[in-house]
Amino acid sequence: MHKQYKFELTTPGRGLINITDEVAKYVNHANVSTGLCHLFLHHTSASLTLCENHDPLVQSDLEAFMLRLAPDGDTLYEHIAEGPDDMPSHVRTVLTQSSLIIPVSDNKLALGTWQGIYLWEHRLRSHKRKITVTIQGD
Amino acid sequence: MHKQYKFELTTPGRGLINITDEVAKYVNHANVSTGLCHLFLHHTSASLTLCENHDPLVQSDLEAFMLRLAPDGDTLYEHIAEGPDDMPSHVRTVLTQSSLIIPVSDNKLALGTWQGIYLWEHRLRSHKRKITVTIQGD
Amino acid sequence: MHKQYKFELTTPGRGLINITDEVAKYVNHANVSTGLCHLFLHHTSASLTLCENHDPLVQSDLEAFMLRLAPDGDTLYEHIAEGPDDMPSHVRTVLTQSSLIIPVSDNKLALGTWQGIYLWEHRLRSHKRKITVTIQGD
Repeated sequence: MHKQYKFELTTPGRGLINITDEVAKYVNHANVSTGLCHLFLHHTSASLTLCENHDPLVQSDLEAFMLRLAPDGDTLYEHIAEGPDDMPSHVRTVLTQSSLIIPVSDNKLALGTWQGIYLWEHRLRSHKRKITVTIQGD
Repeated sequence: MHKQYKFELTTPGRGLINITDEVAKYVNHANVSTGLCHLFLHHTSASLTLCENHDPLVQSDLEAFMLRLAPDGDTLYEHIAEGPDDMPSHVRTVLTQSSLIIPVSDNKLALGTWQGIYLWEHRLRSHKRKITVTIQGD
Repeated sequence: MHKQYKFELTTPGRGLINITDEVAKYVNHANVSTGLCHLFLHHTSASLTLCENHDPLVQSDLEAFMLRLAPDGDTLYEHIAEGPDDMPSHVRTVLTQSSLIIPVSDNKLALGTWQGIYLWEHRLRSHKRKITVTIQGD
Protein backbone atom coordinates (compact mmCIF):
# COMPACT_ATOMS: atom_id res chain seq x y z
CA MET A 1 0.00 0.00 0.00
CA HIS A 2 1.40 3.38 -1.06
CA LYS A 3 -0.19 6.67 -0.04
CA GLN A 4 1.07 9.91 -1.47
CA TYR A 5 0.64 13.46 -0.24
CA LYS A 6 1.97 16.75 -1.61
CA PHE A 7 2.47 19.98 0.27
CA GLU A 8 4.10 23.34 -0.28
CA LEU A 9 6.01 25.59 2.04
CA THR A 10 7.10 29.18 1.59
CA THR A 11 10.51 29.63 3.17
CA PRO A 12 11.52 32.96 4.72
CA GLY A 13 14.94 32.73 3.02
CA ARG A 14 18.13 30.85 3.90
CA GLY A 15 17.92 28.61 6.96
CA LEU A 16 16.54 25.38 8.41
CA ILE A 17 12.81 24.90 9.05
CA ASN A 18 11.55 22.08 11.26
CA ILE A 19 8.84 20.16 9.34
CA THR A 20 8.62 17.12 11.66
CA ASP A 21 5.08 17.86 12.87
CA GLU A 22 3.80 18.38 9.33
CA VAL A 23 5.26 15.03 8.22
CA ALA A 24 3.92 13.28 11.33
CA LYS A 25 0.39 14.38 10.35
CA TYR A 26 0.64 12.50 7.03
CA VAL A 27 2.01 9.42 8.76
CA ASN A 28 -0.91 9.55 11.16
CA HIS A 29 -3.35 9.88 8.27
CA ALA A 30 -1.80 7.01 6.28
CA ASN A 31 -2.44 4.62 9.17
CA VAL A 32 0.43 2.26 8.39
CA SER A 33 1.64 0.01 11.19
CA THR A 34 5.09 -0.98 9.87
CA GLY A 35 6.70 0.65 6.89
CA LEU A 36 8.58 3.64 5.55
CA CYS A 37 7.93 7.33 5.03
CA HIS A 38 9.69 8.88 2.02
CA LEU A 39 10.09 12.63 1.56
CA PHE A 40 11.12 14.21 -1.70
CA LEU A 41 11.95 17.84 -2.38
CA HIS A 42 11.36 18.93 -5.98
CA HIS A 43 14.19 21.50 -6.11
CA THR A 44 17.95 21.77 -6.67
CA SER A 45 18.72 24.73 -4.40
CA ALA A 46 17.22 23.49 -1.12
CA SER A 47 17.58 20.24 0.85
CA LEU A 48 15.96 17.90 3.29
CA THR A 49 18.07 16.94 6.27
CA LEU A 50 17.87 15.25 9.66
CA CYS A 51 19.30 17.66 12.20
CA GLU A 52 19.72 17.87 15.94
CA ASN A 53 16.38 19.27 17.18
CA HIS A 54 17.21 20.70 20.59
CA ASP A 55 19.69 23.57 20.34
CA PRO A 56 19.06 26.17 17.57
CA LEU A 57 22.81 26.92 17.63
CA VAL A 58 23.36 23.60 15.83
CA GLN A 59 21.37 24.98 12.92
CA SER A 60 23.20 28.32 12.83
CA ASP A 61 26.54 26.46 13.10
CA LEU A 62 25.58 24.25 10.13
CA GLU A 63 24.84 27.45 8.20
CA ALA A 64 28.20 28.93 9.23
CA PHE A 65 29.98 25.76 8.09
CA MET A 66 28.25 25.74 4.70
CA LEU A 67 28.89 29.45 4.18
CA ARG A 68 32.61 28.86 4.72
CA LEU A 69 32.66 25.72 2.55
CA ALA A 70 30.62 27.13 -0.33
CA PRO A 71 30.67 30.94 0.01
CA ASP A 72 28.29 33.15 -1.96
CA GLY A 73 29.88 35.00 -4.87
CA ASP A 74 32.73 32.47 -5.16
CA THR A 75 34.79 33.39 -8.24
CA LEU A 76 35.23 29.67 -8.97
CA TYR A 77 31.85 29.49 -10.68
CA GLU A 78 30.73 30.33 -14.23
CA HIS A 79 27.00 29.78 -13.62
CA ILE A 80 26.39 33.24 -12.15
CA ALA A 81 23.34 34.52 -14.08
CA GLU A 82 20.92 33.64 -11.28
CA GLY A 83 22.81 35.47 -8.55
CA PRO A 84 25.79 34.97 -6.21
CA ASP A 85 23.87 32.54 -3.94
CA ASP A 86 22.56 30.26 -6.72
CA MET A 87 25.56 28.05 -7.54
CA PRO A 88 26.49 27.72 -3.83
CA SER A 89 22.89 26.53 -3.30
CA HIS A 90 23.32 23.80 -5.94
CA VAL A 91 26.58 22.75 -4.25
CA ARG A 92 24.92 22.60 -0.81
CA THR A 93 22.07 20.52 -2.28
CA VAL A 94 24.45 18.02 -3.88
CA LEU A 95 26.38 17.70 -0.58
CA THR A 96 23.21 17.06 1.44
CA GLN A 97 19.91 15.27 0.50
CA SER A 98 16.89 15.85 -1.72
CA SER A 99 15.05 12.94 -0.14
CA LEU A 100 14.80 11.25 3.24
CA ILE A 101 13.34 7.93 4.30
CA ILE A 102 12.29 7.35 7.87
CA PRO A 103 10.97 4.08 9.28
CA VAL A 104 7.37 3.89 10.45
CA SER A 105 6.97 1.65 13.53
CA ASP A 106 3.70 1.18 15.46
CA ASN A 107 1.99 3.79 13.26
CA LYS A 108 4.58 6.47 14.09
CA LEU A 109 7.71 8.05 12.62
CA ALA A 110 10.57 6.18 14.29
CA LEU A 111 12.94 9.12 14.69
CA GLY A 112 15.73 9.19 17.23
CA THR A 113 15.27 11.37 20.33
CA TRP A 114 17.39 14.21 18.91
CA GLN A 115 16.42 13.89 15.25
CA GLY A 116 14.16 16.45 13.59
CA ILE A 117 13.19 16.66 9.91
CA TYR A 118 14.27 19.95 8.37
CA LEU A 119 13.79 21.72 5.08
CA TRP A 120 17.00 23.61 4.40
CA GLU A 121 16.52 26.67 2.24
CA HIS A 122 19.85 27.53 0.62
CA ARG A 123 18.75 30.60 -1.37
CA LEU A 124 18.91 33.96 0.40
CA ARG A 125 15.40 35.02 -0.59
CA SER A 126 12.03 33.42 0.17
CA HIS A 127 10.99 30.54 -2.12
CA LYS A 128 7.94 28.33 -2.49
CA ARG A 129 9.09 24.70 -2.05
CA LYS A 130 7.18 21.55 -3.02
CA ILE A 131 7.48 18.26 -1.10
CA THR A 132 6.00 14.85 -1.92
CA VAL A 133 5.44 12.41 0.95
CA THR A 134 5.06 8.73 0.03
CA ILE A 135 4.11 6.34 2.83
CA GLN A 136 4.23 2.61 2.28
CA GLY A 137 3.67 -0.30 4.60
CA ASP A 138 1.32 -2.86 6.02
CA MET B 1 4.77 -5.10 -6.28
CA HIS B 2 8.52 -4.73 -6.88
CA LYS B 3 10.04 -4.73 -10.37
CA GLN B 4 13.76 -4.71 -10.78
CA TYR B 5 15.89 -3.80 -13.79
CA LYS B 6 19.64 -3.69 -14.24
CA PHE B 7 21.60 -1.69 -16.78
CA GLU B 8 25.18 -0.75 -17.47
CA LEU B 9 26.73 2.43 -18.74
CA THR B 10 30.24 3.10 -19.97
CA THR B 11 31.29 6.56 -18.85
CA PRO B 12 33.68 8.66 -20.95
CA GLY B 13 35.64 9.59 -17.80
CA ARG B 14 35.04 12.20 -15.09
CA GLY B 15 31.83 14.17 -15.39
CA LEU B 16 28.05 14.10 -15.06
CA ILE B 17 25.85 12.09 -17.44
CA ASN B 18 22.10 12.69 -17.64
CA ILE B 19 20.32 9.32 -17.28
CA THR B 20 16.79 10.68 -16.72
CA ASP B 21 15.39 9.32 -20.03
CA GLU B 22 16.85 5.86 -19.40
CA VAL B 23 15.27 5.71 -15.93
CA ALA B 24 11.94 7.03 -17.27
CA LYS B 25 11.82 4.07 -19.68
CA TYR B 26 11.87 1.60 -16.79
CA VAL B 27 9.22 3.54 -14.90
CA ASN B 28 7.07 3.45 -18.02
CA HIS B 29 7.61 -0.31 -18.35
CA ALA B 30 6.83 -1.03 -14.68
CA ASN B 31 3.38 0.54 -15.08
CA VAL B 32 3.02 1.65 -11.46
CA SER B 33 0.47 4.37 -10.73
CA THR B 34 1.69 5.55 -7.29
CA GLY B 35 4.96 4.49 -5.76
CA LEU B 36 8.73 4.97 -5.71
CA CYS B 37 11.63 4.46 -8.08
CA HIS B 38 14.91 3.47 -6.41
CA LEU B 39 18.26 3.70 -8.18
CA PHE B 40 21.39 2.04 -6.85
CA LEU B 41 24.93 2.38 -8.17
CA HIS B 42 27.15 -0.62 -7.43
CA HIS B 43 30.40 1.35 -7.10
CA THR B 44 32.42 3.42 -4.61
CA SER B 45 34.08 5.86 -7.01
CA ALA B 46 31.03 7.24 -8.82
CA SER B 47 27.72 8.69 -7.61
CA LEU B 48 24.10 9.27 -8.44
CA THR B 49 22.87 12.82 -8.00
CA LEU B 50 19.94 15.08 -8.77
CA CYS B 51 21.33 18.12 -10.56
CA GLU B 52 19.99 21.24 -12.23
CA ASN B 53 19.21 20.08 -15.77
CA HIS B 54 19.18 23.30 -17.79
CA ASP B 55 22.59 24.98 -17.81
CA PRO B 56 25.63 22.71 -18.40
CA LEU B 57 27.72 25.28 -16.50
CA VAL B 58 26.11 24.01 -13.29
CA GLN B 59 27.70 20.63 -13.95
CA SER B 60 31.14 22.03 -14.73
CA ASP B 61 30.91 24.27 -11.64
CA LEU B 62 30.07 21.24 -9.47
CA GLU B 63 33.18 19.57 -10.92
CA ALA B 64 35.26 22.65 -10.15
CA PHE B 65 33.98 22.72 -6.59
CA MET B 66 34.75 19.04 -6.01
CA LEU B 67 38.20 19.38 -7.57
CA ARG B 68 39.01 22.17 -5.12
CA LEU B 69 37.49 20.31 -2.14
CA ALA B 70 39.07 16.92 -2.89
CA PRO B 71 41.97 17.51 -5.28
CA ASP B 72 43.64 14.67 -7.15
CA GLY B 73 47.04 13.67 -5.82
CA ASP B 74 46.32 15.11 -2.37
CA THR B 75 49.26 14.26 -0.09
CA LEU B 76 46.79 13.70 2.77
CA TYR B 77 46.04 10.17 1.56
CA GLU B 78 47.82 6.85 2.10
CA HIS B 79 45.58 4.80 -0.23
CA ILE B 80 47.43 5.78 -3.42
CA ALA B 81 48.07 2.44 -5.15
CA GLU B 82 45.14 2.88 -7.55
CA GLY B 83 46.16 6.31 -8.79
CA PRO B 84 45.94 9.98 -7.72
CA ASP B 85 42.21 10.23 -8.61
CA ASP B 86 41.09 7.10 -6.73
CA MET B 87 40.92 8.26 -3.11
CA PRO B 88 39.38 11.64 -4.13
CA SER B 89 36.72 9.58 -5.96
CA HIS B 90 35.90 7.66 -2.77
CA VAL B 91 35.64 10.97 -0.90
CA ARG B 92 33.32 12.46 -3.55
CA THR B 93 31.14 9.32 -3.38
CA VAL B 94 30.84 9.48 0.40
CA LEU B 95 29.90 13.19 0.18
CA THR B 96 27.21 12.56 -2.44
CA GLN B 97 24.87 9.55 -3.01
CA SER B 98 25.06 5.95 -4.16
CA SER B 99 21.30 5.70 -4.39
CA LEU B 100 18.35 7.91 -5.19
CA ILE B 101 14.63 7.50 -4.64
CA ILE B 102 12.16 9.45 -6.70
CA PRO B 103 8.37 9.37 -6.27
CA VAL B 104 6.24 7.87 -9.03
CA SER B 105 2.93 9.74 -9.46
CA ASP B 106 0.37 9.02 -12.20
CA ASN B 107 2.72 6.45 -13.76
CA LYS B 108 5.56 8.99 -14.13
CA LEU B 109 8.75 10.06 -12.35
CA ALA B 110 7.67 13.04 -10.24
CA LEU B 111 10.82 15.13 -10.70
CA GLY B 112 10.87 18.89 -10.21
CA THR B 113 11.07 21.08 -13.32
CA TRP B 114 14.81 21.64 -12.97
CA GLN B 115 15.79 18.21 -11.61
CA GLY B 116 17.65 15.71 -13.77
CA ILE B 117 19.05 12.32 -12.70
CA TYR B 118 22.79 12.14 -13.22
CA LEU B 119 25.48 9.49 -12.98
CA TRP B 120 28.59 11.27 -11.73
CA GLU B 121 31.79 9.55 -12.80
CA HIS B 122 34.57 10.60 -10.42
CA ARG B 123 37.46 8.64 -11.97
CA LEU B 124 39.41 10.35 -14.74
CA ARG B 125 39.25 7.39 -17.12
CA SER B 126 36.27 5.61 -18.67
CA HIS B 127 34.57 2.98 -16.49
CA LYS B 128 31.72 0.52 -16.93
CA ARG B 129 29.09 1.32 -14.25
CA LYS B 130 26.25 -0.93 -13.13
CA ILE B 131 22.88 0.43 -11.91
CA THR B 132 19.91 -1.42 -10.39
CA VAL B 133 16.46 0.15 -10.71
CA THR B 134 13.78 -1.08 -8.28
CA ILE B 135 10.25 0.21 -8.83
CA GLN B 136 7.56 -0.42 -6.25
CA GLY B 137 3.98 0.70 -6.00
CA ASP B 138 0.35 0.02 -6.67
CA MET C 1 5.43 -7.16 2.89
CA HIS C 2 7.52 -5.10 5.31
CA LYS C 3 9.68 -6.71 8.01
CA GLN C 4 11.40 -4.58 10.58
CA TYR C 5 14.33 -5.36 12.85
CA LYS C 6 16.15 -3.22 15.38
CA PHE C 7 19.67 -3.68 16.67
CA GLU C 8 22.20 -1.77 18.73
CA LEU C 9 25.92 -1.44 18.44
CA THR C 10 28.43 -0.01 20.88
CA THR C 11 31.12 1.79 18.93
CA PRO C 12 34.71 1.95 20.22
CA GLY C 13 34.87 5.67 19.37
CA ARG C 14 35.49 7.54 16.10
CA GLY C 15 35.88 5.38 13.03
CA LEU C 16 34.14 3.14 10.49
CA ILE C 17 32.70 -0.26 11.48
CA ASN C 18 31.73 -2.82 8.84
CA ILE C 19 28.15 -3.99 9.54
CA THR C 20 27.54 -5.79 6.22
CA ASP C 21 27.37 -9.29 7.75
CA GLU C 22 24.93 -8.15 10.44
CA VAL C 23 22.62 -6.60 7.82
CA ALA C 24 22.91 -9.67 5.58
CA LYS C 25 21.57 -11.80 8.44
CA TYR C 26 18.33 -9.80 8.55
CA VAL C 27 17.96 -9.98 4.78
CA ASN C 28 18.40 -13.74 4.99
CA HIS C 29 15.77 -13.93 7.74
CA ALA C 30 13.23 -11.73 5.89
CA ASN C 31 13.25 -14.16 2.97
CA VAL C 32 12.39 -11.61 0.29
CA SER C 33 13.19 -12.49 -3.32
CA THR C 34 13.12 -9.04 -4.93
CA GLY C 35 12.94 -5.81 -2.97
CA LEU C 36 14.82 -3.28 -0.90
CA CYS C 37 16.66 -3.20 2.40
CA HIS C 38 16.46 0.12 4.25
CA LEU C 39 18.79 1.01 7.12
CA PHE C 40 18.16 3.92 9.46
CA LEU C 41 20.45 5.29 12.15
CA HIS C 42 18.64 7.06 15.00
CA HIS C 43 21.39 9.60 15.72
CA THR C 44 22.76 12.96 14.53
CA SER C 45 26.45 12.45 15.31
CA ALA C 46 27.11 9.20 13.43
CA SER C 47 26.39 8.06 9.86
CA LEU C 48 25.73 5.11 7.63
CA THR C 49 27.87 4.93 4.52
CA LEU C 50 28.83 2.61 1.68
CA CYS C 51 32.60 2.43 1.63
CA GLU C 52 35.29 0.55 -0.26
CA ASN C 53 35.62 -2.73 1.68
CA HIS C 54 39.07 -4.00 0.71
CA ASP C 55 41.80 -1.62 1.88
CA PRO C 56 41.50 -0.25 5.46
CA LEU C 57 43.56 2.75 4.33
CA VAL C 58 40.47 4.00 2.48
CA GLN C 59 38.71 4.27 5.83
CA SER C 60 41.59 6.04 7.57
CA ASP C 61 41.89 8.39 4.57
CA LEU C 62 38.18 9.23 4.79
CA GLU C 63 38.75 10.03 8.47
CA ALA C 64 41.73 12.23 7.57
CA PHE C 65 39.67 14.07 4.96
CA MET C 66 36.80 14.70 7.38
CA LEU C 67 39.17 15.83 10.13
CA ARG C 68 40.62 18.43 7.76
CA LEU C 69 37.20 19.52 6.45
CA ALA C 70 35.48 19.71 9.84
CA PRO C 71 38.22 19.87 12.51
CA ASP C 72 37.44 19.32 16.17
CA GLY C 73 37.46 22.47 18.28
CA ASP C 74 36.77 24.71 15.27
CA THR C 75 36.27 28.29 16.54
CA LEU C 76 33.55 28.76 13.91
CA TYR C 77 30.97 27.07 16.12
CA GLU C 78 28.80 28.38 18.98
CA HIS C 79 27.30 24.99 19.94
CA ILE C 80 30.25 23.90 22.08
CA ALA C 81 28.63 22.74 25.33
CA GLU C 82 28.85 19.06 24.38
CA GLY C 83 32.55 19.07 23.57
CA PRO C 84 34.92 20.02 20.73
CA ASP C 85 33.98 16.94 18.65
CA ASP C 86 30.18 17.37 18.88
CA MET C 87 29.43 20.06 16.30
CA PRO C 88 31.95 18.55 13.82
CA SER C 89 30.03 15.27 14.25
CA HIS C 90 26.75 16.97 13.32
CA VAL C 91 28.46 18.47 10.25
CA ARG C 92 29.86 15.08 9.19
CA THR C 93 26.41 13.52 9.60
CA VAL C 94 24.73 16.17 7.46
CA LEU C 95 27.41 15.70 4.75
CA THR C 96 26.97 11.90 4.69
CA GLN C 97 23.85 9.71 5.28
CA SER C 98 21.58 8.68 8.13
CA SER C 99 19.94 6.03 6.01
CA LEU C 100 20.88 3.67 3.19
CA ILE C 101 18.78 1.62 0.81
CA ILE C 102 20.24 -1.41 -0.90
CA PRO C 103 18.44 -3.58 -3.46
CA VAL C 104 17.61 -7.17 -2.58
CA SER C 105 17.94 -9.50 -5.59
CA ASP C 106 17.52 -13.30 -5.43
CA ASN C 107 17.14 -13.14 -1.63
CA LYS C 108 20.49 -11.35 -1.19
CA LEU C 109 21.85 -7.83 -0.67
CA ALA C 110 22.85 -6.72 -4.17
CA LEU C 111 26.00 -4.83 -3.20
CA GLY C 112 28.79 -4.13 -5.64
CA THR C 113 32.01 -6.14 -5.30
CA TRP C 114 33.82 -3.38 -3.42
CA GLN C 115 30.90 -2.00 -1.44
CA GLY C 116 30.60 -2.58 2.30
CA ILE C 117 28.00 -1.15 4.69
CA TYR C 118 29.62 0.89 7.44
CA LEU C 119 28.50 2.61 10.60
CA TRP C 120 30.61 5.74 10.91
CA GLU C 121 31.04 6.91 14.50
CA HIS C 122 31.96 10.60 14.46
CA ARG C 123 32.25 11.17 18.23
CA LEU C 124 35.64 10.51 19.80
CA ARG C 125 34.28 8.38 22.64
CA SER C 126 32.33 5.13 22.56
CA HIS C 127 28.55 5.41 21.99
CA LYS C 128 25.62 3.02 21.84
CA ARG C 129 24.01 3.37 18.40
CA LYS C 130 20.54 2.15 17.36
CA ILE C 131 19.72 0.98 13.82
CA THR C 132 16.36 0.02 12.32
CA VAL C 133 16.35 -2.34 9.33
CA THR C 134 13.21 -2.39 7.18
CA ILE C 135 13.03 -5.00 4.45
CA GLN C 136 10.29 -4.90 1.85
CA GLY C 137 9.62 -6.95 -1.23
CA ASP C 138 7.90 -9.91 -2.79
